[in-house]
Amino acid sequence: MPELRKDPIIGRWVIISTARGKRPTDFGETLHKSNGGFCPFCYGNEKVTPPEILAFRKNDSAPNGEGWSLRVVANKFPALQIEGELEKRGDGIYDTMNGVGAHEVIIETPRHEKTLSTLPVEKVEDMLWAYRERIVDLKRDPRFKYILVFKNEGVSAGASLEHSHSQLIALPIVPKRVAEEIKGSLVHYQYKERCVYCDIVHQELETRTRVVSENEHYLAIEPFTPRFPFETWVLPKYHASSYERMERDEIAPLAWILQDTLKRIDKILNVPPYNYILHTSPIGEEVNDHYHWHIEIMPKLTKVAGFEWGSGFYINPTPPEEAAEFLREARV
Amino acid sequence: MPELRKDPIIGRWVIISTARGKRPTDFGETLHKSNGGFCPFCYGNEKVTPPEILAFRKNDSAPNGEGWSLRVVANKFPALQIEGELEKRGDGIYDTMNGVGAHEVIIETPRHEKTLSTLPVEKVEDMLWAYRERIVDLKRDPRFKYILVFKNEGVSAGASLEHSHSQLIALPIVPKRVAEEIKGSLVHYQYKERCVYCDIVHQELETRTRVVSENEHYLAIEPFTPRFPFETWVLPKYHASSYERMERDEIAPLAWILQDTLKRIDKILNVPPYNYILHTSPIGEEVNDHYHWHIEIMPKLTKVAGFEWGSGFYINPTPPEEAAEFLREARV
Repeated sequence: MPELRKDPIIGRWVIISTARGKRPTDFGETLHKSNGGFCPFCYGNEKVTPPEILAFRKNDSAPNGEGWSLRVVANKFPALQIEGELEKRGDGIYDTMNGVGAHEVIIETPRHEKTLSTLPVEKVEDMLWAYRERIVDLKRDPRFKYILVFKNEGVSAGASLEHSHSQLIALPIVPKRVAEEIKGSLVHYQYKERCVYCDIVHQELETRTRVVSENEHYLAIEPFTPRFPFETWVLPKYHASSYERMERDEIAPLAWILQDTLKRIDKILNVPPYNYILHTSPIGEEVNDHYHWHIEIMPKLTKVAGFEWGSGFYINPTPPEEAAEFLREARV
Repeated sequence: MPELRKDPIIGRWVIISTARGKRPTDFGETLHKSNGGFCPFCYGNEKVTPPEILAFRKNDSAPNGEGWSLRVVANKFPALQIEGELEKRGDGIYDTMNGVGAHEVIIETPRHEKTLSTLPVEKVEDMLWAYRERIVDLKRDPRFKYILVFKNEGVSAGASLEHSHSQLIALPIVPKRVAEEIKGSLVHYQYKERCVYCDIVHQELETRTRVVSENEHYLAIEPFTPRFPFETWVLPKYHASSYERMERDEIAPLAWILQDTLKRIDKILNVPPYNYILHTSPIGEEVNDHYHWHIEIMPKLTKVAGFEWGSGFYINPTPPEEAAEFLREARV
């Protein structure tokens, strides 16, 4: 059983996944790399993955066979285990609980060569709707406090398989950075009675120097304080605290702006590896005035690593105003 | 002039280094890599670097020439600029100040092929003493709040030159993670009237499952909540809030344990790239009962990147108890 451990100094929880138990010689290889060209996410290989939790497929097709356009399956190498109770306990000054949670994979397309930039936009829409469906379903489990949806694209961004997929982790704790954002935005709200993200949207729409792309519902910007070159955020223009409370007709414009932004990034940075993370309100606090869901996209361009992790200190060699200008003017 | 910008949501400061201004095509190359084998840090090339700020050299040798065993010089591509005032200012909801600070390089050896593991231990001692001397000197500048000392070893850990060196950045702000540690340890102290790091030292010395190495003054452990496989901390066994207040006779045992730990890491993980960061009390709070200086060493073994940065959430595939056993039993 993996274990969730709480740092006694700053209160961050970390999953120690004992089941994986990587030994020194395991590093430097990609463990689950496609074996001689075989890809478990490709069309026709449905039996190789764990069974479908959700799929979009032709009406007459059977689960776990062909005929699908999107599948959600359990991660074969899960960081957390779905069965069990949390069993919170202390060990001297340390706090720990069982690593209970869900770890799912969203296979976004049957076609190995496709990316989110090259898929038909309707397929991006399906993916975003699948995120929502899985969040709504997993929220029913009272053990969970947060559903973390993210995508690693490219090996150097941490993807262990190149076939385009996203991941979802349901957690019994709220990740540290999300908790910080909630707290910071609450402080801002208590002082100003405004959502800080709404303030950001207004100021960015006024100055426009950091705007990348927009439509009626959404805005893509380079944030004022990007940690990384070409870090890009997609936000709803109007206050919305939770992703999964979105209406069906808000998905199409989101799919458009996400794909448009990724196309611009691909064009300007020559199809870089990237990560994106969906930031939304924790379970049980879905409707609030202070937090605003958004997607943070981080192209993986620089080699820096442990220094930033260890210090919480970032040096960004590309001003976001310059990055925004490049992305804004990209022909896509 | 680089700019320090404060994130309006979580309050993190980021350096936007406008002078570097990396454009899209600049990524994917190492900019200042050794040109056809030429290394500016090697013996005989002293004129190529900015002038010495500090050097350990033969009595009869002149500055900026041969005869040295360690040199400290300004970084030729500094993230911050030494001249100027902070000029704090607002821009709507955003806060910013001039990127004023110092950025220095500690060249640890004249010999290109040496590493901290293979240098005579007295040279590691010199390096640690040079850290102390530079901290003491830079603390006199009233613009600075924190001196961040760190080392990137290996290209994939962010080193732009392979010749063994450390870096030092003097900052007009306290980096976020340090501020969190100070705050967390203060809360612990207010509740228990004990330093949380002293508590950790006691518990680790009792259970011993995460101990890597020790001597009379220092302890090397795998922390209870490592973010990364083989993350290792070196701490003084007795309460000490500031690195630079160390006595001359405490440097030799520190050099020994740091080198011993790095030798074990090199042996078990086959000379991996790594980062280490010196965590110490901010300027003006050097003597306190709650914070405890230490060094955090992070071998760069996994490819994960933006996901952890973006979520503050870590999955560690190697239990620290197993990592400690490997390192403890390494023959060095």
